[in-house]
Formats: sequence, structure tokens, C-alpha cells
Amino acid sequence: MDIGFIGLGSMGLPMATNLLAAGHKLRVYNRTAAKADLLVKRGAELMSNSAAVASSGGVVITMLADDAALESVVVGVDTIAHRLAPGGIHISMSTVAPATVRNLAQYHAENGSTYLAAPVFGRPEAAAAKRLWICQSGPHEAKHKVRQILEAMGQKIFDFGEAVSAANTLKVAGNFLIAAAMESMAEALAMLEKSSVDRAAAIEMLSSTLFACPVYQGYGNAIAQMRHMPAGFRLQLGLKDVDLALKTAAEVRAPMPIASMLHDRFLTSISKGRAEMDWSAIALAARDDAGLPPSK
Amino acid sequence: MDIGFIGLGSMGLPMATNLLAAGHKLRVYNRTAAKADLLVKRGAELMSNSAAVASSGGVVITMLADDAALESVVVGVDTIAHRLAPGGIHISMSTVAPATVRNLAQYHAENGSTYLAAPVFGRPEAAAAKRLWICQSGPHEAKHKVRQILEAMGQKIFDFGEAVSAANTLKVAGNFLIAAAMESMAEALAMLEKSSVDRAAAIEMLSSTLFACPVYQGYGNAIAQMRHMPAGFRLQLGLKDVDLALKTAAEVRAPMPIASMLHDRFLTSISKGRAEMDWSAIALAARDDAGLPPSK
Amino acid sequence: MDIGFIGLGSMGLPMATNLLAAGHKLRVYNRTAAKADLLVKRGAELMSNSAAVASSGGVVITMLADDAALESVVVGVDTIAHRLAPGGIHISMSTVAPATVRNLAQYHAENGSTYLAAPVFGRPEAAAAKRLWICQSGPHEAKHKVRQILEAMGQKIFDFGEAVSAANTLKVAGNFLIAAAMESMAEALAMLEKSSVDRAAAIEMLSSTLFACPVYQGYGNAIAQMRHMPAGFRLQLGLKDVDLALKTAAEVRAPMPIASMLHDRFLTSISKGRAEMDWSAIALAARDDAGLPPSK
Amino acid sequence: MDIGFIGLGSMGLPMATNLLAAGHKLRVYNRTAAKADLLVKRGAELMSNSAAVASSGGVVITMLADDAALESVVVGVDTIAHRLAPGGIHISMSTVAPATVRNLAQYHAENGSTYLAAPVFGRPEAAAAKRLWICQSGPHEAKHKVRQILEAMGQKIFDFGEAVSAANTLKVAGNFLIAAAMESMAEALAMLEKSSVDRAAAIEMLSSTLFACPVYQGYGNAIAQMRHMPAGFRLQLGLKDVDLALKTAAEVRAPMPIASMLHDRFLTSISKGRAEMDWSAIALAARDDAGLPPSK
Repeated sequence: MDIGFIGLGSMGLPMATNLLAAGHKLRVYNRTAAKADLLVKRGAELMSNSAAVASSGGVVITMLADDAALESVVVGVDTIAHRLAPGGIHISMSTVAPATVRNLAQYHAENGSTYLAAPVFGRPEAAAAKRLWICQSGPHEAKHKVRQILEAMGQKIFDFGEAVSAANTLKVAGNFLIAAAMESMAEALAMLEKSSVDRAAAIEMLSSTLFACPVYQGYGNAIAQMRHMPAGFRLQLGLKDVDLALKTAAEVRAPMPIASMLHDRFLTSISKGRAEMDWSAIALAARDDAGLPPSK
Repeated sequence: MDIGFIGLGSMGLPMATNLLAAGHKLRVYNRTAAKADLLVKRGAELMSNSAAVASSGGVVITMLADDAALESVVVGVDTIAHRLAPGGIHISMSTVAPATVRNLAQYHAENGSTYLAAPVFGRPEAAAAKRLWICQSGPHEAKHKVRQILEAMGQKIFDFGEAVSAANTLKVAGNFLIAAAMESMAEALAMLEKSSVDRAAAIEMLSSTLFACPVYQGYGNAIAQMRHMPAGFRLQLGLKDVDLALKTAAEVRAPMPIASMLHDRFLTSISKGRAEMDWSAIALAARDDAGLPPSK
Repeated sequence: MDIGFIGLGSMGLPMATNLLAAGHKLRVYNRTAAKADLLVKRGAELMSNSAAVASSGGVVITMLADDAALESVVVGVDTIAHRLAPGGIHISMSTVAPATVRNLAQYHAENGSTYLAAPVFGRPEAAAAKRLWICQSGPHEAKHKVRQILEAMGQKIFDFGEAVSAANTLKVAGNFLIAAAMESMAEALAMLEKSSVDRAAAIEMLSSTLFACPVYQGYGNAIAQMRHMPAGFRLQLGLKDVDLALKTAAEVRAPMPIASMLHDRFLTSISKGRAEMDWSAIALAARDDAGLPPSK
Repeated sequence: MDIGFIGLGSMGLPMATNLLAAGHKLRVYNRTAAKADLLVKRGAELMSNSAAVASSGGVVITMLADDAALESVVVGVDTIAHRLAPGGIHISMSTVAPATVRNLAQYHAENGSTYLAAPVFGRPEAAAAKRLWICQSGPHEAKHKVRQILEAMGQKIFDFGEAVSAANTLKVAGNFLIAAAMESMAEALAMLEKSSVDRAAAIEMLSSTLFACPVYQGYGNAIAQMRHMPAGFRLQLGLKDVDLALKTAAEVRAPMPIASMLHDRFLTSISKGRAEMDWSAIALAARDDAGLPPSK
């Protein structure tokens, strides 16, 4: 199938690579064109602006950094929202606010195209290995049409119905849960270390039993060993994600006290110069508060 | 081997049953003697007081409700601490304060016997299925001697060295992490529900991917479905465990803000009449605060 | 002096009345014109749009509900920012975000007029009694020129220098401190009531000694007596103010954990149907959590 | 009147001095006898043990550091509780747990004497100036008898009825409110400083208007100027007081989230080596978290 792809960052690039490998033809666009070199070598066509990747009735995938970047390729004069019409589908895979999703879906509808939400869970390695978990929500028919495209990028697709913002709300909740788990482990490990219990042995036990799952294993080890560089996901972006949870929750009047506390932890971490570390570095704040040094 | 066993509650009873099944001979004691009926039918000998289960150089296992209950069978005139001497081993499997462990280990040492800490993770079903996870700490030699006994009750043994309170500190940390995960899920689900995302589908997705582990699966489903009765572990005891974490952390001057918040959540839950529900019912507080009803 | 006045709400109206009483001539504007009736009877001139209250080199006072309302009378084609030029002064007395202040001050400067920040502390009764406390910041010369005007509305003026957003930052901090004091008293009184100590006697003692000041006396009595209607300041607006503190603090990377908690309390209160009560009704949440009824 | 006085610390000494000045005769006791030198010069009689200060039907005042110290002079063989009988009164002015008060009052009653609770608010300077605020609770008749004694030590007496633990519950609440006010100011000032608003000017404004009261003035200035040495009240004792609030609240199942947060702040402060500073030094934690230095 002919697919447009916008956004070749650390996630978008391996995703697009998998689409090529699955036999799809790609027209790609990225603000920094050089990021597309590898894809072009493998047959992708590099376009000079984002709208150019779209064709009437076709499919465009976007994987962008934030709400503003996504809005900039959808809203305006002659964007993918118009060029996809009639009948084309925009598969939007970025982590953005549910409210943004509703607005953009409305905009697409008014211009004759369809917005399909398909945010993903997984880090760059998972994207490369086609092991992403994809959450989708939006019109049934559109989901049916793009099924194979999504399957070429992930290991499993979870459907959250036709209300288009549902998948992104779930994504926001999931990222909150990861941050909450990191903070919880950080507090437990600070207490254990000051009680002379070995941090690594503690995480080894807990993450092979009650908490035998990717989040506690991956982040648990990083936190136990205070290994937060290089950043898989920058701490600065972690604040953005927690604030997304708080904003989404405030809109529906649902207090989230742990999210509020995490917001404070992220601010503290940035104040202390950790914005460019991996977001698991919020765990260092629990060490600071316990009077423990930030590294071995 | 001849083993004494004190404490035949919902955990102790299946554990003792497994020891009998493994061919050990048991002398048992329980405050409410009737709880021992089944074990006696299978060959256990019921004693009229706790000290009587012990013999010089032998092994006694205790599985009791709290610190006071444990202290009452160790400290005093003619207790298991004295009757096990010389050379006997007290395998203490209850969830108690690390400080209590240090005191009782000292008391045993002064009276010629050995205290071995072996707290467990798992609910009654896991105890029955011999699927407990056992954390041990204490003298190397004692651990070596009782290895087979522990293996008859659990699926895996994790060693935390010779400092006797380490295993219980880990146990305290583990229970804190469970409560923190429950509160985190409760907050996320309240936000999702008010955003019209299906609670059960959300937990299904999250607990089969990022959080594919017993705590998020078991408690996640209970919380998603607001199913908190009958109690596997009473909420009132959950407060005791969180307070144990706070007390242990305060002793070593390690602040645990999420534990502090959980303390408040448990108090709120008890104030609202939920003390006898399962401790996962602390999740209802996030619903209350979001203006959602406590049941379907 | 000839003064324009925009915003005749519960605060603006008594403030404008005091200006008339002090001998100033007023041109007034309010979205709901009827609110101006009393002022017109006393000699004020009612204008048909906000820009019309301004004259070149003159003074305009605004007292509006929020950032959007303020921006709408400043930014655009032919607003007070243009009509005041050259040399006119806009005395902006609303509680708005420091960032908004900086933007609007810049806009005024570009159009040849001056923005002076002068937010106030005090409820409508204080405004009527000319007992407002006024915080000002902005260009020295402008402050000198309007001194007498401000003195006609308040009991004291506090200067925060030439950086124009300083006064509003202080105002944001002050409102946060009020909310924090209310929550603190609410928690203390819930504990006291459940300990059978008389709420009113407790507040009487504390607010006549250690805390002998308007906030603890006024709000303390309201909270002790659970008297939260009618609203002097609506709870819904309280959330806006706490969020202003959080936003201002987040911009400079300063975590405010009590503000985060207050944000949650306000959301809870709104979820429970208390948005139209006085903002002191956030105190009811501490009662809810303690299992106490929301009224006598 | 003949009065026994136990506890000549920084508070007890000026209080006893005022009693002498008012014409009372004192028998005093202090663990470190040298502290009594000045009183002895002015006519007080130094006793060699605490019980010796009491006489049948007389009055004994205690001003001790904590619950254990107080219990040690009341419970036992031949203590003031026995020597005061029949009919003597123990005026207990220390800050102790309400539960301790109930136990000791019961003990006194069983031994024929009366326990009267009379905790105070005020720092050593206030004690010296006879400006303490005294909260009393206990039997009406006893309060009537000792009225003049209390008046010789304080500026005002607040009565909390006959339930003997009420005054100490109020005292616990009051100390919590002071700590909450300090933390609130610390957060506000960190935000203001990072927004380039002058800390001292901010506190000057707030504490001369909305918050024109001793706590905001005294502690506000200390916090604005980061002046936390020498300690008027040691931070380590501040933790004790906050924990007293948490314990008292937990007994009646009343959650106090700000108290929980303060507990964490005090632990953090002690971990960072601030235990011997004034308790207002908990304000430094908000600076740490905002990335500001702990001193000018």
C-alpha cells in the first residue's frame, strides 16, 4: 500500500523501516531531512513538505513530538487533512492530549478525511523489533482498513472503541502508571538501602515474582543501579506526560494525587539539572531526600 | 523432621498442611484449637500451649498476626526461645517490624537458640498451592539446615544475607509496593472512567503488556470491577503494613511520600466503614474523590 | 481626574463607587450594562464598549474575572492599549497570570501606553470600606502619577518594584497561602472534632493568639461552623487561583507540594457538587475523609 | 502557695521564676541540678528527687521534654501521684500525647490525686515575659483552685472543658498549624524568589495584612532571611510534634495529608543534617527542591 509517513525521530524511523520491510511504499517527510537517508536508500520517497506525503483516499501515519507539532501538519491551508479527502485516513500515533485528538478528529471530519488514534507503548528498541503495543480508537471501518499496516509495526493491537480520544486517554494513563511505579520503587529502595539491604537483590526478587513485568524489570534495574544515562526517554518529556495526565484528569474533575506528586518530583529533578537524563532519574529525588548520594 | 508450628490462620494452616504432605511430623499450637482439627486428622499432634511445640535442638515455625502475637510466644518464662536451646531454630514467617526481628533474634541468641527470618509473599491460595515466595535472612548455617522445610512450603527462596532483619525489611517494602500499585491503578481508572474509557478493557491491556505481573493482574481486575469482598487480606491490616513501612523508614530517616499518602487513604477508608473489606478497597477512595459511586 | 473603569463585578463596583466619592470623574463599561445603574446615578458616564472609556494620555482601570477577559479589552484593533496612547496608563487590578501581565505590558509598550499592575487583596466588603490592600509593580513614573487614584480605593499600597509581573506573582502567592491555611485548619479541626474537642473554641483560641489575623479569623470561623454559603469567592475560582500558582511555579521550576494537594482538593470538591459554594468549602473534604458529615 | 516544680529547661526555668516573683514558695527538681541555681538564690528549695517536691493536698507543676519523662515522674512506687494524695493537683504543662494524658489522669485518680492538663503556647522569651497562652482541661474544681498559679505564668487562659486530654489535643493541633504555615510560606517564597520577587518584601506585605499574626511574622521573617540558628525549638523536636499529630489523628481515624507531608519534610531535613537547627529550617527543603542554595 502507498503510505505517507511524517516524523522520523527515534520512534518513527524504526516504525517506518518496518513498513518498508513489510513491502509498503512510503512517501516520507521529516523536519530534518537527513534523518530520512536510510529510508530513501531502501526505496522511500522523501517529500519537501508534510502535506505532500498525502494522497486522496490514502493513508498517512504521523509520529510527532507533541501536540503543537501534530496540529501544525493537520490544521491550516492545504494540509494532510485536506489532501487525504475524500476518504483518506490519518493514523495518528503520537502521545498527545485527548482533547487535541477530539479537535483534530473534528477537523478531519469537516474536511472529508478520517482521524484514527493509534498511540503506542514501547521504547525505540521495541519499535525496531516490531514489538510495540498499539492502542487504537476511532471509526470501525477505518480500523478495519489499516489493520495490516498497524500489524506491520507492533506485536499486538488493543481496541478501545469508536470514541476517538479513548486510546490516547489510555496512553496517558499508562505513562502515568509507569512514572508512579518508578517513584514507588525509588522510595522503597531508598528505605532499603538505608536499612542495609542490597538494592539489586531487592529488585531482582520483586521483579521476578509479584512484579515480574517489563516496567518493574527494566526501570527497576535502572533505578537500583542508578543508571539514567543515556536517556531512552528524556526526563523533560516525562514532565510533559505527567502534566498531560493531570490536565486530562482535571478536565473530567478526577483528582490524581500521585500524579500531582510526580509533577513536583519532575520539577525538582529539572531544577537539579536532570532534564536531559532518562525520566527514570526522578528516582534520584528519593535518594536526595534520604540524604543518599546521587551516584555510587 | 519433627517440627513445631504455631499459628494456624488462613496462611499458617495451608503451610502446615504442606509440611505434613511432605512427610514431616508436626506438633501444632493455635489459640483457637479447633483450627487444628484437619491437621490432627492427618497426624499432627495438638499441644496445649505454644512452648510445648518446641524441643531442644529442633525447629519451630511461627506464622502469626502481628508483632505482639509473635513476641508473646518468644519472650517470657519458658518459651520456645528457651525450649529450642541449645541449637534449635525458630523460623519466623510472619510480617513484622524489622526492629522486632532484631530484638527477638537477640533474645534467642541470649537463650541459646537461633532466630531465622523467613517472611513470605502470597495469599492463602498460593500458600495452599505451595507457590509462596519466601525471603530469608539470618545465620548461614541455620538457613542451610532448614532449606528442605522451606522448600516444602514455597516455590522459591530468596536469600538476603546474614543480617537477620533484611528479609522483613524487604517484605515491608514489597507490601508497600503492592499498595502503591493499587492506589496508582485506582487513580488512573477513575480518570479513565470519567473519560468514558472502559475500566476492564484498560486493565486488560495494561496488565497483559507493560504490567503483565500478578499484582497488576490480580488487584487490577478487582479494582476495575470494584470487587473487594470477601477480603483476602483485610484493609485494617493493610494500614498496619503501610504503617510498618513508615515506621521502618522513619527509623533510618528515609521519607516515603507515597507511603504517607497511603496511610491517609487507609485511614479514610476505615473512617468510611471499609475496614473489613479487602485492602484493595482503598481504591474506592479515588472514586469517592472523583464523585463516582462506590459500586456499580 | 478623568478615569475609565472596566469591570463592575462584586469587586469593581464598590471600587468605582469609592473613586466617584473621592471626586474623580468616571467613564465606565461593563458587559452587563445594568450593573452600572448606581454609578450612573452618581454621575458616571456609561460607555457602549470598553475602548470608549479610554482617552489619550488618560487612565483606565480594569477589574475583570480572568486572563481572557483582560486580554479581550487590551489586545485587538482599537483597544484601550491604543486609545490611551501616547502616555496613558492602564491600571490592571485583576488577579491574572504573571505571564499574561508580561505579555500585556509588552503590548501596551508597543502601542505607546503603559501597563501598571495593581492587584488587590480583600473581599467585596473590604472594597466597599476602602480597606483593600493594593500591590503594585511597573514603571516608577506611572506609579507616581496614579498614587492618589489607588489611595482612593485601598488602605495601603505595597510596592514591588519595576518588574511589571511582580505584584501579580505576589498576589498568586498570597491566594495560595490563604488556601493552604484553610486546608490546614480543616485537617486540624477534623482531628479535633473526632477527639471531642469543640471546633469553635479551638478556632477562637488559635485565632486570638498565634494566628490572630484576618485569614485565620474569617475563614477559621466559617470552617469551624461549616458555613460556606453564600459564596464570597466561588470555589470554582479557587481552583483557577491554585492552578495559577502551580502554573507560575512550574514556569520557574519551583515545586509546590501543598499547591498540588490543594489542586486535588478543589477537584474533589467540584466533583462533589461544591463549585458554587465559597472556596472555604474545600474544608469539607477533610471532613468527608474523616467520615464526618458535611453539615451539622 | 507552696508549689512543687519539676523540669527547669528553657521553658520551665522562666515559668518557675515568674512563680517566685509572684510570691509563691517553690520546691524544685531538675535532672541536672545546676539549672536550679538561680531559683535557689531567689528562695526556691532544691529537692533531691522528683517525688519530694510534692506534699499531700498540694500542687505540683511539671514542664518536661516528652511523654517518657513525664511518665517517669508519675508512674511508679512513691511518685508525685501518691504524695499529692489526698486532694493534691498535678498541673501538667508539657506537650505530650493526648493518650498519655488520659492514662496519667487515670493513674492519678486511682491514687487519690488529680491531673490537670495545662499545655502552653509560646517560646522561652514569651515564658520569661509572662506572655504564654495556656490551654487547660480537667476537673472544674481543680481549675478553679489553681487559677492564680496559671495566671502568674501566662497572659491568658483558655478553657477546654472537663475531658482531660482536650487541651493537649488542641496543643498538638496548634503545633501542626505552625508547621503547616512554615511549609506553606517556604513553598510560596521559593516560587517568588525564582520569579525575581524580593522574599523580604513579600513577607513584609503578607504578614502586615492578611497574615498579621505572630506565626507568620516571626517564622515568616526567619524563613525569608534563611535565619535558622540558633534553634528556638529544635527541628528534631518538630518531628516529634508532627508525629504526635499524626498519631493522635490516626487513633480517631482522621487523615491529615499536610501532616503526612510535614513528616516527610522533617525526615528529609534530618537526613540532610539539619536536626539541630530551628524547626523553621524545614523551609530549606522547598529551596533544595527548587534548586536554590540553602543560604545567601
